[in-house]
Amino acid sequence: MKYPNGIQKTFQSTITYGNRGMTLEEDLNLTNEYYREEDIAIIYKKPTPITIYKVDYPSRKEAVIKEARFKTPSTTDYNGIYHGKYIDFEAKETKDKTSFPLSNIHPHQIEHLRRIIEHGGIGFLIVRFTSTNETYLLEGKDFFHFLSNEKRKSIPKHYFEEVGKLIPLGFRPRLDYLKMIEVKNEK
Amino acid sequence: MKYPNGIQKTFQSTITYGNRGMTLEEDLNLTNEYYREEDIAIIYKKPTPITIYKVDYPSRKEAVIKEARFKTPSTTDYNGIYHGKYIDFEAKETKDKTSFPLSNIHPHQIEHLRRIIEHGGIGFLIVRFTSTNETYLLEGKDFFHFLSNEKRKSIPKHYFEEVGKLIPLGFRPRLDYLKMIEVKNEK
Repeated sequence: MKYPNGIQKTFQSTITYGNRGMTLEEDLNLTNEYYREEDIAIIYKKPTPITIYKVDYPSRKEAVIKEARFKTPSTTDYNGIYHGKYIDFEAKETKDKTSFPLSNIHPHQIEHLRRIIEHGGIGFLIVRFTSTNETYLLEGKDFFHFLSNEKRKSIPKHYFEEVGKLIPLGFRPRLDYLKMIEVKNEK
Repeated sequence: MKYPNGIQKTFQSTITYGNRGMTLEEDLNLTNEYYREEDIAIIYKKPTPITIYKVDYPSRKEAVIKEARFKTPSTTDYNGIYHGKYIDFEAKETKDKTSFPLSNIHPHQIEHLRRIIEHGGIGFLIVRFTSTNETYLLEGKDFFHFLSNEKRKSIPKHYFEEVGKLIPLGFRPRLDYLKMIEVKNEK
């Protein structure tokens, strides 16, 4: 399956992913499920935005979409509540070995993240380098620091290594990204 | 329609906006746009959740969904950030003149709202009675108070009138629902 501009989804690249062949999205879905079950946070991935052009009704109760197209997302993919605070992030995989191309994120999504932080929300990026299966969390402030100081069209991997936080892969939770974030407990 | 700075134009409210054929969803979209433009809050409607079965690629860059079905939503439709707080609500219209049938809201959505409130978020319902074009905000605590004290399968309209808050229809913002909510300013 192909995804619209900027949405990259790599399928099972044979060996990687700790042998289990999970995509970042699958890992995050499992992790968010865990967070909800353990009552740690309520975070969901938003549905993929589409425009529907044609719907059929083969029966009274059933509706089948027969034509639809992917829309450019205006927000990030994930949001929710953690310790009473609004939390919001975008997650991307890249096959690139040395840097994360900024073309992977829509300008609207970057702008959205910026505003969330201005409004006092917790905003960040999660980026997985699939070649080494390393997943980093880059806090909003560090992301925007890079954007305002660099003209490069990609963030070098060493920036993630130095400024970001490596999220270890675990069993349960699979990808404990909330551990990487400092939040005053206001719950 | 936009007017130049400082020029305010109020529409005749005698004929009511009902005659102009806007749905609750359209009113809320306009209102959320206004809130974002004025930097009051960042609130979006989530895309409709679907399951995609078949995608065609008429050209390299284009993807057309050829078969998809609607999924039962696991969360409410609207969420975002307001004064640094997580905000979450469901909005429904009913043609019923005397009550709001609870069958309009999925059990998953009710459960979601309950958990959001437990986690310190702001959660509520917006219900429009289309026969009179009245729109009410019912705070989460009042909604759950009803659910735990009543066995009825619908909420009588007088409960909205007595316990909820009538949201007046305006021009800009169209439906100023945030005004009905008391939030400590933590922005």
